[in-house]
Amino acid sequence: MSEANPDAVSAGIVVIGDEILSGRTRDINVQQIAEFLAPLGIGLSEVRIVSDDQDAIVEAVRALSARCTYVFTTGGIGPTHDDITADAVAAAFGRWIDVRDDAREILEHWYAKTKTEITPARLRMARIPEGAVLVENPVTGAPGFQIENVFVLAGVPKIARGMLEDIAPRLTRGKVTHSVTVRHENAREGDLAEALGQMQADYPSVSLGSYPWFKEAEDGSITRGVALVARGTDEAVLKTIESALQALATDAR
Amino acid sequence: MSEANPDAVSAGIVVIGDEILSGRTRDINVQQIAEFLAPLGIGLSEVRIVSDDQDAIVEAVRALSARCTYVFTTGGIGPTHDDITADAVAAAFGRWIDVRDDAREILEHWYAKTKTEITPARLRMARIPEGAVLVENPVTGAPGFQIENVFVLAGVPKIARGMLEDIAPRLTRGKVTHSVTVRHENAREGDLAEALGQMQADYPSVSLGSYPWFKEAEDGSITRGVALVARGTDEAVLKTIESALQALATDAR
Repeated sequence: MSEANPDAVSAGIVVIGDEILSGRTRDINVQQIAEFLAPLGIGLSEVRIVSDDQDAIVEAVRALSARCTYVFTTGGIGPTHDDITADAVAAAFGRWIDVRDDAREILEHWYAKTKTEITPARLRMARIPEGAVLVENPVTGAPGFQIENVFVLAGVPKIARGMLEDIAPRLTRGKVTHSVTVRHENAREGDLAEALGQMQADYPSVSLGSYPWFKEAEDGSITRGVALVARGTDEAVLKTIESALQALATDAR
Repeated sequence: MSEANPDAVSAGIVVIGDEILSGRTRDINVQQIAEFLAPLGIGLSEVRIVSDDQDAIVEAVRALSARCTYVFTTGGIGPTHDDITADAVAAAFGRWIDVRDDAREILEHWYAKTKTEITPARLRMARIPEGAVLVENPVTGAPGFQIENVFVLAGVPKIARGMLEDIAPRLTRGKVTHSVTVRHENAREGDLAEALGQMQADYPSVSLGSYPWFKEAEDGSITRGVALVARGTDEAVLKTIESALQALATDAR
């Protein structure tokens, strides 16, 4: 259960990609960005996956930009016709967009090294909204950018990860949320629920979650268990709760 | 690039889970549901991942229910205090919710088989909004439900998958979107982009996507390539495009 905290530093992600929505590709950027932000004390509060459609991107970027401290978009900044993210994000903020000299120079420098021709398509990757700050791409050169509280990243996970390194120093850090996990094979949620609910009431500053799992063996038999997870910013409290969670699951066997 | 089609049967997904947002667990239900819907001719148009928070769930369910033919929620229907989805979905539609006799009978029957006590916590799983139609859970008994165009599924992928089987006959089918994929090692998007854009202009009924990939070998060297994907409902047109995509990538080497 989330506790609303107006002082918390929050983040939203807009994943742009028909490729994810079609089921052909499983997104891994959400987890990658969440894991990157966690040690900075920035919690992910909402994710939207939208299609390669300008209106859909504009709506999602505006909504999350208004309610989150930071927004990260992934995908749609390459050289092909289906890469419309830069233009959509510019539209979301009513900014002019065109090929910008600073971005063009980065591409020229990068492609000179590999003797790659800068086609008009490649030059599209230098389209950056006015007033945006570039984000370095250490993998393939073509930069991302930051506009207000929105960071526009590539969709290829390796490139997105590289861009996050350049962004990290720009982010305000929050209180880090720590977590402890207590796993119990054979335990069942229904037997733990009452005591767990009481514990949540006793420790309102901590968020307690219960996650059942089921595994089917080759012979068809099913093993089951529950992972109990406590999240909070106070490590001493979490230590106390960890012991309580261990005792709880043992009691319920 | 998505073509708006008012006749299309569309779906949205609301993934409910601090567990996904924290980065601890990578969601697999989005891909699972997308793959389930594809052969039914139902295209996924938007996904939202929200926290275990009633307001967040209500907003996402209402927004997607209004714009998609169907909405699927995953997560938050178990017996523990952090399972608030049933109440939130009831609130989204202004429906009364309480333990319902039909759901209670299912639980009693299910737990009788395993001599499991029906604790007050387990009975929470029989809380179903008024007017909702139950969805069978072949794995652990506790049902999901359908209210208007929203299907409320478990978060455990194995259970969610089982529930989809019960839902399939209730869904209006659309035209199936087929896809062809042409993969080219060593090809680079910037060399293919212009011709690909021209092809997209020539075949507006088909959606053409370009997805670059990079792989780092153990010696640090990087191989790269592009997957070109065409999606559409006319298989004959896709066949034509497949050949053109193959020729395109060969030309650009």
